[in-house]
Amino acid sequence: MTSINVGLLGHGTVGAAFAQLLAERAAQVEALTGRRPELSGVLTRSRGNFDDILERSEVIVELIGGLEPARDHVLRALGAGRHVVTANKQLLSQHGDELFAAAREAGAQLRFEAAVAGVVPVIRVLQESLAGTHVERVHGIVNGTTNYILTEMARTGATYADALAQAQRLGYAEADPSEDVDGRDAAAKMAILARLAFGTPVRLDQVRYEGIERIGPDDIAYAHELGLGLKLLGTAERVDGGISVRVHPAFLYGGHPLASVMGPFNAVTVESEAITEVTMSGPGAGGAQTASAVLGDLVSAVQGAGEARPPAVAGGESLPVVSDVESAFYLHLEVADQPGVLAQVAQVLGLQGASIKSVVQRGLGEDARLVMVIHPLLESKFFAACDLIARLDAVRAAPRAIRVIEEEFV
Amino acid sequence: MTSINVGLLGHGTVGAAFAQLLAERAAQVEALTGRRPELSGVLTRSRGNFDDILERSEVIVELIGGLEPARDHVLRALGAGRHVVTANKQLLSQHGDELFAAAREAGAQLRFEAAVAGVVPVIRVLQESLAGTHVERVHGIVNGTTNYILTEMARTGATYADALAQAQRLGYAEADPSEDVDGRDAAAKMAILARLAFGTPVRLDQVRYEGIERIGPDDIAYAHELGLGLKLLGTAERVDGGISVRVHPAFLYGGHPLASVMGPFNAVTVESEAITEVTMSGPGAGGAQTASAVLGDLVSAVQGAGEARPPAVAGGESLPVVSDVESAFYLHLEVADQPGVLAQVAQVLGLQGASIKSVVQRGLGEDARLVMVIHPLLESKFFAACDLIARLDAVRAAPRAIRVIEEEFV
Repeated sequence: MTSINVGLLGHGTVGAAFAQLLAERAAQVEALTGRRPELSGVLTRSRGNFDDILERSEVIVELIGGLEPARDHVLRALGAGRHVVTANKQLLSQHGDELFAAAREAGAQLRFEAAVAGVVPVIRVLQESLAGTHVERVHGIVNGTTNYILTEMARTGATYADALAQAQRLGYAEADPSEDVDGRDAAAKMAILARLAFGTPVRLDQVRYEGIERIGPDDIAYAHELGLGLKLLGTAERVDGGISVRVHPAFLYGGHPLASVMGPFNAVTVESEAITEVTMSGPGAGGAQTASAVLGDLVSAVQGAGEARPPAVAGGESLPVVSDVESAFYLHLEVADQPGVLAQVAQVLGLQGASIKSVVQRGLGEDARLVMVIHPLLESKFFAACDLIARLDAVRAAPRAIRVIEEEFV
Repeated sequence: MTSINVGLLGHGTVGAAFAQLLAERAAQVEALTGRRPELSGVLTRSRGNFDDILERSEVIVELIGGLEPARDHVLRALGAGRHVVTANKQLLSQHGDELFAAAREAGAQLRFEAAVAGVVPVIRVLQESLAGTHVERVHGIVNGTTNYILTEMARTGATYADALAQAQRLGYAEADPSEDVDGRDAAAKMAILARLAFGTPVRLDQVRYEGIERIGPDDIAYAHELGLGLKLLGTAERVDGGISVRVHPAFLYGGHPLASVMGPFNAVTVESEAITEVTMSGPGAGGAQTASAVLGDLVSAVQGAGEARPPAVAGGESLPVVSDVESAFYLHLEVADQPGVLAQVAQVLGLQGASIKSVVQRGLGEDARLVMVIHPLLESKFFAACDLIARLDAVRAAPRAIRVIEEEFV
């Protein structure tokens, strides 16, 4: 039979790993598909011509990253009826509608397992295994850089800056880590997962996100005393009349399925009434792992694995994205060590409907520290209370607030 | 477009749940596939005719269970070019070669996600996401009944009999639980996973298995002191020149990814050099969950998701199944409380090359109890040592041995 001609766009870490894996596993792919894969061309900044490669290829593997020229090349490949496999989360989260429409129109496949959580098969599971399931919530740890940093801070008591430097030395963080540590990377992934889980368009700018840059070792230490561990959590869930998609640091109770995910690993839990929950975990990044996910998609595309679930069409819903949800909070205040401060704080919280679950007060010379856990309430109400608390005379520094995920039956 | 005519064989717990789910999710399936599913017939012991149903159906869903008439019906359906979705692990593990050959010959799909670990998508991930990956090991907890019983024994100190009775009251164990508790159910699932992971035929009678019937609360309590938790572990792995497939109780160190899997949940880890490891977990059984997995397979079959990886053909390997592997052991001995007993036991162990990692001795009136952990050695050597130890005058009862999975870097 004929060979599978694969055009490779990009030859960075992942691109080079993919080219090597494709050569190593050619016999295995031939055994699976009956056809031997061959690189028909490689496009880099300095060599190769996209039109030539497109002409000679049955499948285009896009590993350039970023928006342009990746968007142009993927659209033209799909328009020419070529299957496309990509690991480009920014492209999918910002131009998903356009790309999925192009794939549908041409009857070509667009596969992107490697765009979210590396080799952890969350895309395929949402599109295939759970096709036909009414998903209530998808949440997880979808950024390995921040999970490594938070794991190190908890394990060694290191500051954020020191843990980041360590991550950079080990290759878990890039020289410019801002997209990872400020939550944007995770937000793009959650936009993609939300689209698949709920079959509704979700734009990246509809995802609220916060990063981990302002987390201090003392936050982690205090929470540890409360039996809580800190993770950067991405959530996409159905709420009254719509969906909420968000990324923020969160304290998880010790028995939470995501609390034990350590180092650069990723994990995603899918919840639905019919299935209870399914959790998948594994290494979230790394050239070899991402290349493995790309190869799995390539095999499926060639096997003619039908159309994957057409995102934003299945079910025909278009759900509003809501921005205010209920959360429990950890609240850390530096205050003057004088009588009546706790009463003032409690009064402000009470006026916004915030109810205090627990409080720890510690003296620090003239100042004191109040660490509270607040029962779930609308986030808008909680942040309104924080603004008021910040203006109290006795409060010495901006309040630090972190969401808390408690056991659901508590 | 036309409807999808689905013939349902069997209308027990899972069959009834599937019929209900199919009706509930018909619109969703239509949105995904462009075609509305309809039950073309239901076969039970007392009603329906298989030939009529086959004639009218595009896909046959086999939920009868057991070997006959399930085998006959599945073979005839595949022979007639119908796709088959089944949850029947016994059928697949005992007649896999014949069934996969029939599917290949007819160009029909045989899908069986629900046969292993319910809605946990391990079959699809092995066949699709990790197609082209050189898998080193698949291991996990693939029987929810035994995991529930062991979880309860650890949590409450209950005896095996009491925990089993509790599982039966809650519907986690059947009236006749023997296939679950003696390890046969898990063995059938591991035979299927081994076939997919290594692309080699594995017969059920090549899988060694032990159950949990002889586990005592004191074994669990002692191990707890050593930081170990007990699970019924299924393992399929490459070993020198072949593969080993086995099911047995095992003590896992506290940080092991499978140690935190509680109650009736299942979890499977796939390891390979390229991907490190991917772990999937979720409810292992239950009518609604199994029905969800069947529906996911139905959608994939209808979407023409190509041929799933042809088991036992990919790679063209036929690997020998070896029976002797290296393991670490926990060894529990009831002995006379007299000088020199430990020395005798240690001498016998040493003659077989077994090295003692730790030992705890406790007096019990005239008797004493020795609890040891033995460093990894060939199981045949260890069991030879146990036979000799059992014959020592000072040993009061048959030695109790349970395998130990330690941290790999220890």
